[in-house]
This record gives sequence, structure tokens and C-alpha cells, in this order.
Amino acid sequence: MAAARGDANAPSGVEIERKFLVKETPTGLDACPRGEIEQGYVALDGGVEVRVRRYGDQAFLTIKSGGDRVRLEEEFEIDPRRFRALWSLTEGRRIQKTRYLIPAAAGLRIELDVYHEALAGLLTAEIEFDSSAAAAAFTPPEWLGAEVTDDPRYKNKRLAIEGLPA
Amino acid sequence: MAAARGDANAPSGVEIERKFLVKETPTGLDACPRGEIEQGYVALDGGVEVRVRRYGDQAFLTIKSGGDRVRLEEEFEIDPRRFRALWSLTEGRRIQKTRYLIPAAAGLRIELDVYHEALAGLLTAEIEFDSSAAAAAFTPPEWLGAEVTDDPRYKNKRLAIEGLPA
Repeated sequence: MAAARGDANAPSGVEIERKFLVKETPTGLDACPRGEIEQGYVALDGGVEVRVRRYGDQAFLTIKSGGDRVRLEEEFEIDPRRFRALWSLTEGRRIQKTRYLIPAAAGLRIELDVYHEALAGLLTAEIEFDSSAAAAAFTPPEWLGAEVTDDPRYKNKRLAIEGLPA
Repeated sequence: MAAARGDANAPSGVEIERKFLVKETPTGLDACPRGEIEQGYVALDGGVEVRVRRYGDQAFLTIKSGGDRVRLEEEFEIDPRRFRALWSLTEGRRIQKTRYLIPAAAGLRIELDVYHEALAGLLTAEIEFDSSAAAAAFTPPEWLGAEVTDDPRYKNKRLAIEGLPA
């Protein structure tokens, strides 16, 4: 909704993403930059989610509302002590994964996520696009599998709470 | 629990407070310092509460867990824009009150809260003490009514969610 972009409380921009399962990891993966991601849910209440996320050296607290009435996303950078404290509230609702950044054609970048702990065995790949046209034009490389962009079972929250899709 | 005080994740110190209803407002109230307090609950999930609070010019986001396993309280100062955004998520779970700071005997200070909106008509007064002995020794002034220190109906969260006690 373009009109929402000027609203300081609106999420910053619209993300156009496609998500795929992974048939096999690509060659050269060890040479790609990577980071450890830990994400957990502190509170889930109706349309409101409160989560913490660590990516490498940085940690964030995010409050997100996807409700019909109020849509917003507020993100706070937090220090490691705060992250550890809040992380203790997320038990049973966590995602831990290694993210590899893989260069792709047309200046795109594939984010390959290798999940750990309860989600071990799962691999997904996401690509973010500047436009719907670019998203539609994307031809996935051979090592990517089924597209799960619109499959709710592969949303982070769902994976954190319900675990591996059956 | 004294041992917990060295823990960076533990709530900072133990508060010893007594809370009373108010029979009548004391004379000289208009001359006392006062501030407007708005407090609302963004998310309530099991033992975890996420709330925002504005007191005069300052606003805070607080994440609190009262669970058996993990007890913590993390407070973040937030700017007015963040406060307004998060406040929009608290509809139906809010407290709005004017707090008057009233000097009392023995260097104590009575915080008189005059509630507004859905809680209009309610007045409570709280006094914080340095020690259990000081709390026990406190003789409430004539204008205070029944003590509700241990009455769960007068907890902020309960008032915000359930409204005025029947």
C-alpha cells in the first residue's frame, strides 16, 4: 500500500521476496560469507509478536503487529546482555540457523539458511528483489528445490513454534 | 532474595510498597508536583508482559517475566514516536492517571494516583519504603482509606485489563 510509506509507524518499505527449499548445497559454499542467526519469540499475543534476534554481533528486539487495525514494526538494537536475558524467555519458540550469502546472477544475492537444533535438516533459500518484475524474472539455480514463498509452514514464526513441516 | 541482587538480569532491588484507597484528596494537592502517566499492555503471553509507559516527558518499554523459571525485567527508554506507535497496540488495556507527589512524615512520599478514562473515580496512593520495618511503622494519614497492598484487583495489569473492581 503505497500510501502507508509516508507513515512513520509503517514498516519501512515493502519486501518482495521469494523462498525456496534447497535440493543440495551449492559448490563453493565454504568461501561465502556467513553469520549465525538466533531468533526467538518473547511474546505472542493476538496479532502482536515480540521477538529477539541475533545476527552475528548485532542483536535486535522487534515488536510487530500484523493485525487488521494496526500494522507496525518497531525494531530496537539491544546489547548482548539484554539479548541473553530476553532469549531466556523464548525457550521452545526459537530458530537457530547459519545464513550463507551467495552471489547470484543479475546482482542478486541468495540467502541460504541452514537450520539447527529442532529444525536440523531444513535448508531454505531466500532472494529479495527490487521489484515484482525482477521477482517474476528470476530463474532459480539448479540447486534450489520447490518454491515455498506462499507456504505458511515455512514462515519463521511457524517454524519456531511448530517445528519442521510434516 | 539477596543472592539475586548481583545478577544483571534480576530486577533491580526489591520494592517494599504499601497501597491504599483514598477517602478524600488532601488539602494543598494543587501545589504538589504532578505528572501524567499512561501505561498500556502491548502483549501478554503466559508469564511475560510487554508494556509501554509514559510519565511526563519520558517513555519506556518494559518486558517483564514473572514466571517461575525465569524472572526478569528489562526496561528501554523510547522516544515519543515509538511510544505513540506502540501505544496504538494497547487499546482496551490501558491505564491513564495523574500522579501527585505528596510529602509525608519521616521523609516519606505518597504517590497519589487519580485515574482517568475507563477507571475514572478510582484514586489510590502508594508509599515506597527502604525497609520492612519502615513499612510496618507507617501510620497512614487520615485521608487514606482501606489498605489494598495485597489486593490483586488493584494491580496495574488487572486494572488495565478488567477495569474498576466491582
